[in-house]
Amino acid sequence: MRKDEEFSEWYNSVIDRAELSDKRYPIKGMNVWRPYGWAIMKLIDQAIREEFDSTGHGEVNFPVLIPETEFQKEAEHVKGFEGDVFWVTRGGLNELDVKLVLRPTSETAMYPMFKLWIRSHADLPLKVYQIGPVFRYETKMTRTFMRVREIHFFEAHTAHATFEDAEQQIREDLQMNERIMRLLALPYLISRRPDWDKFPGAHYSLGTDTLLPSGRAAQVATFHHYRDNFAKVYDVTFETETGEHRFVHQTTDGMSERLLGALISIHGDEKGLVLPPAAAPVQAVVVPILEKGRQEEMLLEAQRLFLELRDRMRVKLDDRDIRPGEKYYEWEARGVPLRVELGPRDLAKHVVTAVRRDTGEKRELPREGLPDRLRSVLDLMQIAMWDRAEKILKDNTFTITSLGDARDGFNRMGWCGKESCGKAIAEKTGMNVLGTPFYPEPFEGTCIISGEPTKQVVYAAKAY
Amino acid sequence: MRKDEEFSEWYNSVIDRAELSDKRYPIKGMNVWRPYGWAIMKLIDQAIREEFDSTGHGEVNFPVLIPETEFQKEAEHVKGFEGDVFWVTRGGLNELDVKLVLRPTSETAMYPMFKLWIRSHADLPLKVYQIGPVFRYETKMTRTFMRVREIHFFEAHTAHATFEDAEQQIREDLQMNERIMRLLALPYLISRRPDWDKFPGAHYSLGTDTLLPSGRAAQVATFHHYRDNFAKVYDVTFETETGEHRFVHQTTDGMSERLLGALISIHGDEKGLVLPPAAAPVQAVVVPILEKGRQEEMLLEAQRLFLELRDRMRVKLDDRDIRPGEKYYEWEARGVPLRVELGPRDLAKHVVTAVRRDTGEKRELPREGLPDRLRSVLDLMQIAMWDRAEKILKDNTFTITSLGDARDGFNRMGWCGKESCGKAIAEKTGMNVLGTPFYPEPFEGTCIISGEPTKQVVYAAKAY
Repeated sequence: MRKDEEFSEWYNSVIDRAELSDKRYPIKGMNVWRPYGWAIMKLIDQAIREEFDSTGHGEVNFPVLIPETEFQKEAEHVKGFEGDVFWVTRGGLNELDVKLVLRPTSETAMYPMFKLWIRSHADLPLKVYQIGPVFRYETKMTRTFMRVREIHFFEAHTAHATFEDAEQQIREDLQMNERIMRLLALPYLISRRPDWDKFPGAHYSLGTDTLLPSGRAAQVATFHHYRDNFAKVYDVTFETETGEHRFVHQTTDGMSERLLGALISIHGDEKGLVLPPAAAPVQAVVVPILEKGRQEEMLLEAQRLFLELRDRMRVKLDDRDIRPGEKYYEWEARGVPLRVELGPRDLAKHVVTAVRRDTGEKRELPREGLPDRLRSVLDLMQIAMWDRAEKILKDNTFTITSLGDARDGFNRMGWCGKESCGKAIAEKTGMNVLGTPFYPEPFEGTCIISGEPTKQVVYAAKAY
Repeated sequence: MRKDEEFSEWYNSVIDRAELSDKRYPIKGMNVWRPYGWAIMKLIDQAIREEFDSTGHGEVNFPVLIPETEFQKEAEHVKGFEGDVFWVTRGGLNELDVKLVLRPTSETAMYPMFKLWIRSHADLPLKVYQIGPVFRYETKMTRTFMRVREIHFFEAHTAHATFEDAEQQIREDLQMNERIMRLLALPYLISRRPDWDKFPGAHYSLGTDTLLPSGRAAQVATFHHYRDNFAKVYDVTFETETGEHRFVHQTTDGMSERLLGALISIHGDEKGLVLPPAAAPVQAVVVPILEKGRQEEMLLEAQRLFLELRDRMRVKLDDRDIRPGEKYYEWEARGVPLRVELGPRDLAKHVVTAVRRDTGEKRELPREGLPDRLRSVLDLMQIAMWDRAEKILKDNTFTITSLGDARDGFNRMGWCGKESCGKAIAEKTGMNVLGTPFYPEPFEGTCIISGEPTKQVVYAAKAY
């Protein structure tokens, strides 16, 4: 299946062949995570967890259900979600007095508790996060990891004494985001979403977009500054040092299984998945070439090699009694970064043959010092995968001066900042306006709609 | 609060003071896991995960929702659960064509997929497990960790070629169960549940019961042999080596947050939680006693100590600027196994003062070789906590010959095996018949109801 010709079919076949997820579950858009896919997702979760733990966030776990009464308190938020949620209306044989919503996100579950937990300035900042399922009643076409009805979701929620403290939190979030995206080898653009497209209830929203080979943007992370919008609705206040009562300022940071969807899309190839070492449940697989008559010797040597490597990487010994070619095919489909072949000739020469999954490069390496050497190859591969993907992103970012030139990829253009012009860009191109770049980009030009001189650019792209 | 006098109030206050969970969430029986409680549960999950990973189980993640059509296929199973489930009947503003159940357990979600995954004998055994939320529409009084409406649940599901292979799996489960219960310092009894009390759809069920200080049994793990009952309903077959098609034989192994509830109940004391080192997010806390004028020196020394200990245990340095007494109170409430105090006098003598949470024992220990020494103390504590709890369990297991002697604790008595006699035991005592011990116990006596001579015993207890 050609990735460049039939992207959607290719994407689905990579997921099937690597046994990441099964979409034959009898509810549309609710898929089953199979062990290998879940193992990758757990590595991603763990990387995220380490970032948030080390910046003083506590991991919590809130109920999946939210009472209608809490859910409906923030008007904009309700308006944004009410068409999109699943409703629990019955328990056993009884109609419920208060209907329950399967959380589409957890603001309305968490903030009634924040009200109880926060009393004084000493309780601030409050920083928590949660990893678990959220639900959306999607009516659009679903797509594994990209648009599903049960989403494996990450959400951090914080409360601060001031607007500025909350802004500082978002800067911390962006630093974590950079490290996480590096681990997944996913280059990205951070934009401040246009006001008409911010999160329901947010003061402002930032989004992290990756660019998929289909030429479309995929939002993989969002950061919202809520100001005191939710605090006013849920009455989340604190007592200052001087005894005043003030509303807290809040932020959220959200990510999802889309990170995996983007990773598959950007790095996969005709042979299947290609995993950056940091997200690979198996970083190297040792495959002994079992020649008749010398099987025991080869197996013993492969075992020795496996044990040597085990301290330096996640390694697997594949000693199954099937042809090496079958094994190669399978581990390539699963995106394992390194294959280490050990044949009778390698043994005699005291070498192994190492094959990189990302480039296909095959090299003979001396047995001596192999763990260090392979560890270095993994580290290089991690960087090389980022660099290649970054080049593609740059090559597909176009500064345009006429909407007729808008194409697949990130389209960058002058914008005077008026909502009417922004909406016109969206309408005339059929694209999403991703917003203005968070990290300022020098620009001198004119608004692509009004023609007014401007120093501001805006990005637009087709989006998932 | 006295544990022996007001057990329920004591239990709730331990949970509150240690900030494990908050039951003020606005849905009855759906509680919020706070960071410290969730950290303990994650350690328990991880211990379970390691057992199941190392015995060839793959971790999967199934959707939380099950279509009514799949849920209602196995008649006994439906009958057992239909009064207990939450129903999703609406998506957005639409009534759903097929109603969805919030899974109370995952047989009916998983087995339609097993049918797709299993083709031939080479696909067997299939061994998977899942950690995530399940839901029960409880109408009885709820109780944190013990009886809730959203349960943090572990479930392993396996499929085998033969009845015997499935039995072998259950023996493997029991070995894992033993290791997990040792880590949590929870002595237990394994019983084969009476036929009238087995899991809906099971051929037979085993249960692991702990004994709480209230004198009541708490089931904390179950093991079911399904024979081919579900396989017949979900048409899960495989092709044998000789080309025949046969139904698989299945088992499950289930555990839940009740493990934490039992741990709190059995080991906690008047000062709060007492954690066995294996389940303690913080195994040792270093508390410098900050004397005026020497604060910097003490802090530096405490930091050095913290760094020394860090490789051997999960350690925390509490250098907050509050009175040591406040710190002691807090860490005791949180059940941290070891407190390491470092005062100016300790510093001069080149010692520390170590206090064990389980016994309160206070000892001066030389600074030299301290990491090894404290590691040994933790290991001893782990065993001591099991031993103490086991003695209590034994002291509260009573062999009785008349139902009038039935009391709080495990009641052991002769049983002829007839269902009518078993049910009479339950009716006359108001207790649950836990079943016959899985590991045979030598006995010569008479049935407590019929008076017939029997070599079989049965256990009964009040139960949660």
